[in-house]
Amino acid sequence: MALITILNGPNLNLLGKREPEIYGHATLDDVKALCGARCEALGHDMRFLQSNAEHELIDWIHTARDEAAAIVINPAAFTHTSVALRDALSAFEGPIAEIHISNVHAREEFRHHSYVSAIADTVICGAGIAGYGFAIEAVAAKI
Amino acid sequence: MALITILNGPNLNLLGKREPEIYGHATLDDVKALCGARCEALGHDMRFLQSNAEHELIDWIHTARDEAAAIVINPAAFTHTSVALRDALSAFEGPIAEIHISNVHAREEFRHHSYVSAIADTVICGAGIAGYGFAIEAVAAKI
Amino acid sequence: MALITILNGPNLNLLGKREPEIYGHATLDDVKALCGARCEALGHDMRFLQSNAEHELIDWIHTARDEAAAIVINPAAFTHTSVALRDALSAFEGPIAEIHISNVHAREEFRHHSYVSAIADTVICGAGIAGYGFAIEAVAAKI
Amino acid sequence: MALITILNGPNLNLLGKREPEIYGHATLDDVKALCGARCEALGHDMRFLQSNAEHELIDWIHTARDEAAAIVINPAAFTHTSVALRDALSAFEGPIAEIHISNVHAREEFRHHSYVSAIADTVICGAGIAGYGFAIEAVAAKI
Amino acid sequence: MALITILNGPNLNLLGKREPEIYGHATLDDVKALCGARCEALGHDMRFLQSNAEHELIDWIHTARDEAAAIVINPAAFTHTSVALRDALSAFEGPIAEIHISNVHAREEFRHHSYVSAIADTVICGAGIAGYGFAIEAVAAKI
Amino acid sequence: MALITILNGPNLNLLGKREPEIYGHATLDDVKALCGARCEALGHDMRFLQSNAEHELIDWIHTARDEAAAIVINPAAFTHTSVALRDALSAFEGPIAEIHISNVHAREEFRHHSYVSAIADTVICGAGIAGYGFAIEAVAAKI
Amino acid sequence: MALITILNGPNLNLLGKREPEIYGHATLDDVKALCGARCEALGHDMRFLQSNAEHELIDWIHTARDEAAAIVINPAAFTHTSVALRDALSAFEGPIAEIHISNVHAREEFRHHSYVSAIADTVICGAGIAGYGFAIEAVAAKI
Amino acid sequence: MALITILNGPNLNLLGKREPEIYGHATLDDVKALCGARCEALGHDMRFLQSNAEHELIDWIHTARDEAAAIVINPAAFTHTSVALRDALSAFEGPIAEIHISNVHAREEFRHHSYVSAIADTVICGAGIAGYGFAIEAVAAKI
Amino acid sequence: MALITILNGPNLNLLGKREPEIYGHATLDDVKALCGARCEALGHDMRFLQSNAEHELIDWIHTARDEAAAIVINPAAFTHTSVALRDALSAFEGPIAEIHISNVHAREEFRHHSYVSAIADTVICGAGIAGYGFAIEAVAAKI
Amino acid sequence: MALITILNGPNLNLLGKREPEIYGHATLDDVKALCGARCEALGHDMRFLQSNAEHELIDWIHTARDEAAAIVINPAAFTHTSVALRDALSAFEGPIAEIHISNVHAREEFRHHSYVSAIADTVICGAGIAGYGFAIEAVAAKI
Amino acid sequence: MALITILNGPNLNLLGKREPEIYGHATLDDVKALCGARCEALGHDMRFLQSNAEHELIDWIHTARDEAAAIVINPAAFTHTSVALRDALSAFEGPIAEIHISNVHAREEFRHHSYVSAIADTVICGAGIAGYGFAIEAVAAKI
Amino acid sequence: MALITILNGPNLNLLGKREPEIYGHATLDDVKALCGARCEALGHDMRFLQSNAEHELIDWIHTARDEAAAIVINPAAFTHTSVALRDALSAFEGPIAEIHISNVHAREEFRHHSYVSAIADTVICGAGIAGYGFAIEAVAAKI
Repeated sequence: MALITILNGPNLNLLGKREPEIYGHATLDDVKALCGARCEALGHDMRFLQSNAEHELIDWIHTARDEAAAIVINPAAFTHTSVALRDALSAFEGPIAEIHISNVHAREEFRHHSYVSAIADTVICGAGIAGYGFAIEAVAAKI
Repeated sequence: MALITILNGPNLNLLGKREPEIYGHATLDDVKALCGARCEALGHDMRFLQSNAEHELIDWIHTARDEAAAIVINPAAFTHTSVALRDALSAFEGPIAEIHISNVHAREEFRHHSYVSAIADTVICGAGIAGYGFAIEAVAAKI
Repeated sequence: MALITILNGPNLNLLGKREPEIYGHATLDDVKALCGARCEALGHDMRFLQSNAEHELIDWIHTARDEAAAIVINPAAFTHTSVALRDALSAFEGPIAEIHISNVHAREEFRHHSYVSAIADTVICGAGIAGYGFAIEAVAAKI
Repeated sequence: MALITILNGPNLNLLGKREPEIYGHATLDDVKALCGARCEALGHDMRFLQSNAEHELIDWIHTARDEAAAIVINPAAFTHTSVALRDALSAFEGPIAEIHISNVHAREEFRHHSYVSAIADTVICGAGIAGYGFAIEAVAAKI
Repeated sequence: MALITILNGPNLNLLGKREPEIYGHATLDDVKALCGARCEALGHDMRFLQSNAEHELIDWIHTARDEAAAIVINPAAFTHTSVALRDALSAFEGPIAEIHISNVHAREEFRHHSYVSAIADTVICGAGIAGYGFAIEAVAAKI
Repeated sequence: MALITILNGPNLNLLGKREPEIYGHATLDDVKALCGARCEALGHDMRFLQSNAEHELIDWIHTARDEAAAIVINPAAFTHTSVALRDALSAFEGPIAEIHISNVHAREEFRHHSYVSAIADTVICGAGIAGYGFAIEAVAAKI
Repeated sequence: MALITILNGPNLNLLGKREPEIYGHATLDDVKALCGARCEALGHDMRFLQSNAEHELIDWIHTARDEAAAIVINPAAFTHTSVALRDALSAFEGPIAEIHISNVHAREEFRHHSYVSAIADTVICGAGIAGYGFAIEAVAAKI
Repeated sequence: MALITILNGPNLNLLGKREPEIYGHATLDDVKALCGARCEALGHDMRFLQSNAEHELIDWIHTARDEAAAIVINPAAFTHTSVALRDALSAFEGPIAEIHISNVHAREEFRHHSYVSAIADTVICGAGIAGYGFAIEAVAAKI
Repeated sequence: MALITILNGPNLNLLGKREPEIYGHATLDDVKALCGARCEALGHDMRFLQSNAEHELIDWIHTARDEAAAIVINPAAFTHTSVALRDALSAFEGPIAEIHISNVHAREEFRHHSYVSAIADTVICGAGIAGYGFAIEAVAAKI
Repeated sequence: MALITILNGPNLNLLGKREPEIYGHATLDDVKALCGARCEALGHDMRFLQSNAEHELIDWIHTARDEAAAIVINPAAFTHTSVALRDALSAFEGPIAEIHISNVHAREEFRHHSYVSAIADTVICGAGIAGYGFAIEAVAAKI
Repeated sequence: MALITILNGPNLNLLGKREPEIYGHATLDDVKALCGARCEALGHDMRFLQSNAEHELIDWIHTARDEAAAIVINPAAFTHTSVALRDALSAFEGPIAEIHISNVHAREEFRHHSYVSAIADTVICGAGIAGYGFAIEAVAAKI
Repeated sequence: MALITILNGPNLNLLGKREPEIYGHATLDDVKALCGARCEALGHDMRFLQSNAEHELIDWIHTARDEAAAIVINPAAFTHTSVALRDALSAFEGPIAEIHISNVHAREEFRHHSYVSAIADTVICGAGIAGYGFAIEAVAAKI
């Protein structure tokens, strides 16, 4: 039995309320429930976190180095701008899955580049919140 | 009568003290006074905030979703680097005005691109602190 | 009491008739009235001109060198292509405000670059025709 | 019975005299005759114009808004540089065909981009002056 | 009396069924009928072919070297990606017309470049299926 | 009960034999078995195909238009070069999932761009062959 | 004895008055006198013209085709933006010299590219108004 | 004694007939004879193949994995566009030589990039058909 | 005797633990000891700080405006992404040294650009933690 | 009376022998004679030098710092590649003229950029060897 | 019987000693012996030279104009930076072969461009020192 | 006790005389004295050299391979243009420090890229001549 840390980046606290034509109607609580069920089914513990602050996400990744076996991260807008997040994740030794609810490749040009993808193991986008479940399975398979 | 949230990004707490040849000698308190007077004249309430932290600005934008009718924002350096701020503003449904005290187009190349402009309604730069007044009028006209 | 020259570039004679979803329903006469009222309120004279010809705009800028204290210009399409207009404006010594009715940053890529902005004092876009009023105030403050 | 405005840009007055290895030996009068015959055959009136002045072309496009059902335009060198022409054409509601006598794609790099093509309905190049006939048919079919 | 080979690239077998808002409702059989009539009117034979396979198109162009006097080609998606097709066409000595049913210049950026245009004589786009007729006339005039 | 077409692009017949440090040791038969089991579990039929020929993949996509409810595709090298494949997929009306066994974002620069992603619903990479299962679930959820 | 047409582009009517730290204190009349003397010394006639209008310059170049043996042109701002001017000059068969009073290579990036240089015979910049004299000698040597 | 597979890409069946000023007058049969003689002299068997179909070349490379000790390939137009060919060659473990008859570096810009070169051992171009002989020697030396 | 503020950016709290093949085995405490000793030797006070939060670094720079004579900063990942940090440093009037433990120029492309370097006085990289000592000496020499 | 140093870069010793269709038939001795006469006419001494070695040209520029009042330089191929030459010239305090015999702007793309032009006073190209005379006059006027 | 000049650029004197994993263990003397034998077998004389100085290589190319029938050159690092070398080679009228021992296309990006290739007849890379032999044969075939 | 070779590139012989506002007033003799003292303090020998010739610097690096334990190099202008120097340094096995007196990142764009940095161990710029001392310490620590 291992711990899977699930991190959510900026504005994801608004999930289900903000631009539902892009992100759908499920809320972050729905995502948490989905993730909890999937982790439990796989026999793992879960820590589910969200922050609009880059440093908080970095701190949680640092903590995960000692406590978690895997990280699932939806970096949201930080995907495209945060080298600091990438560096923190590079320092994590377990499997990492990057998840995006919408299909970022069908959106603005600047959303096509991710600082995280190159150092993640798995990248999933456009599967809606079900993508979190896939991401959990993907990292669980590598623990 | 509505609330107008006025947000100021990083380093603007130094206004009037930092590089006055670029930003002038007025302080952020002067800006606040100017904004307060203009809002009052237009019959609106004002919330005037400044932060060097991206997440605080994001949180205030989230709050504004429920409480404010319009946002005036001087994103300062975040103009050029923060997709997270853009995403937060995209989730705001009222009018948005972006304001820069100096004329960013006459400065370094990297200051010519704004992540905010494409989702703002109005963009004003190089009018000094008077630009705040114009921005308030612009959003007030759309409330 | 000083003279403010207000220049309007190509296709602005169609204002209110052309693509109203972008430019609104106000006509150029409405703009002229708005500008006249604002100049009068500020105690200034106004010369309000429109041309589809680049050379006519240049000639009017040359004339303004001797007669006007400030220029407000909506260069329209010339914004993105006319170095000649920029050079003429560079030869004007008073304050210059560049105004766009629509938010050019939310439109085609080639509308994001302006040859004029770097040598203007103030740039205003996306405030509708009210932007002319802001522009007049901005230059009046520097006369 | 409708009016088709046929516009010719800069240097086309030299057609048949200038660089015949690129543009052929037919003159602009030959083009006019060809266009007149084709319009007549299709039961339409024609207005055939040429100018080296961008503003004259713009003015004629403005006039066409009220009087013509379609525009055929050979923008010549303005193809690659005139946003003002594009904006004028955008304000025209009937069908637009862009025609080039030579194959611009086989010439200098800077001739490969057209500001007009994106807002035209039909683009024809490298068919010699016969392309005018095709262009007339193309817009006539959409009137 | 000469033979005109008319080639149609990938996915054109779906014409009329796929994305009719872009390509219209006419089917490839309609195009074939139109082309047959036009060739006959001009006193020429026609060979009308379609393939989703690049090598088949290349083979047909090779055959055309010995048998056809002209080629009309709608390279469809291969327009933007096939140097092999360009090289095959370069080896053909008669006139070549490139035709696109939709206006590719008004679509995605990657559709703005054609490997074929630089070695074609004539390029027609956005005239709907009528463009095939124009293309046939254009090459017939050069046989 | 619906049909899910699962397509595999060039060189995937070598799976498990070619560069196992990148693609792993599972063979295409293993992938087929995995997919068959997942489809069956979800109550769907499966058609599992592989080809090194672009036109064969295009033909299969055309067939899928009439027979399948969803497509899962691993376009392999065609991901980065085939507009024809993209166009064929655009003409398919059901849900589409793009799957890559390896994490293409951690490989050569030219593998970072996909012509398919912008028109797919879901994109999964770097999850090994388990990604096929996620892709099937993703499209099944949208049937 | 031959005619040399000397053309001056936009804003050069301000020479000596505009930005003298860049262009010096000599006026366009001084330039005309210098050119007249040099032409006379070389036994040639001179036609000395200035316009802020691109079409007027084009018309004068067209006239020069019939009347002048050489052209000396200071295209000023049109250097960087006018394909129409380049095309007109391409249609002139005698020698062409391009002259800039200031050293454009030491100024803004956008002034480093000239549409005219590639089709001129001689290019002179940064020699002050003396450059006109050099340009006249250069074309005179090729008449 | 080993087998050397020699592959020729699209349009090379026309060798000696197509654009002889670029490719010379030797035919593909001449190339085959040259290669046969050189392989025999070196004590190796040869399999000499040409196809206009990318998938056939890929299939032959797959076959070569089991049967050949080395590959000599003239990818022709696929050099610049085929990632699939590159991937197939990457899966081949013996030495690979890439050969071009003409000097591609002296031709169009798009011919300067090769997807194959980075994974080939040896690259030869501009030596005419003699380059095949050099390529055979180069791979033979590494068997 | 003056105060030197020494700032350390995101993830540097992991120094010695994270990717030691890049950053070495010394910890941030070792760096602090080294810096303390060097400052003492030079007769200066030191304030040694680390944060994963951009705003905290900005706040400390603001404080340094009033209290410190010089800044030594290892901006870590913020080097490449933070205009806000650059702006804060621009508002500091004393000497600034930028230090990187590893040689960023030998790493990923995106690490080759620094927003800080252009406004720093001194830049040191690839000297390991000894670089801090050099940086202190460099700013001390300018106090 | 002052000394003018005239420097000629690599391959200019072949002048008149190498590619005369580009450079003409005059030899470097002819250029020297022309320059000598012009300097004498202006009452100046001349030092005329040529080298294929960058360091020799640099050394001569260093010497010119103490002995010459002006430099005329034809940097030939070093124009496009030598920052060292630029730096040496930057250290020279008198006027500098850059001269090219051919019109570099009508040649390969890489010849359009000069490291020297931005720090020269005057740039002349395409006037044949007469350009040396113009260059001498240009610098003489500034001594 | 003719003379073949074989030139070797900077750092090739270290061949066999420097980075043998890239360049192999053969020394420049080995290369010289190989070249001597091949020239002798073909009935030609050889001049074999190496220099770290660009000007010496240029001088030797100038000499070759009068004395040699062909040039084989390994420009080493100058491949990517020396226009002067290219210009010298352009002035040589016999055949030129460019040779690189390693496969430059599999190395750093900046090694993918050669100033020499466009004016060479033959380019060989990645064949080890055997490439010199191929190069000699290639130029000998054109003498 | 080991030898440290200290190399200085083009124009550094002018140090203290050329552009002192950029490079300061210290001469190269001052730098030599500083370096000598530092090397002596560290118990090492020094060889201090300067040349304007790239090949001389290369030769000295080759010599250093046999005699020196470390290299400190100020490549000056060659930093940005010399692949040959980079290759020579790559062949040196001891530690290498690159030093620039001025802060190249605050100067022209073309000075921001260094061919040397990627293969150096340490890079120091903008510390004035004190940077030489830091560089010596940095390499001494790695001997």
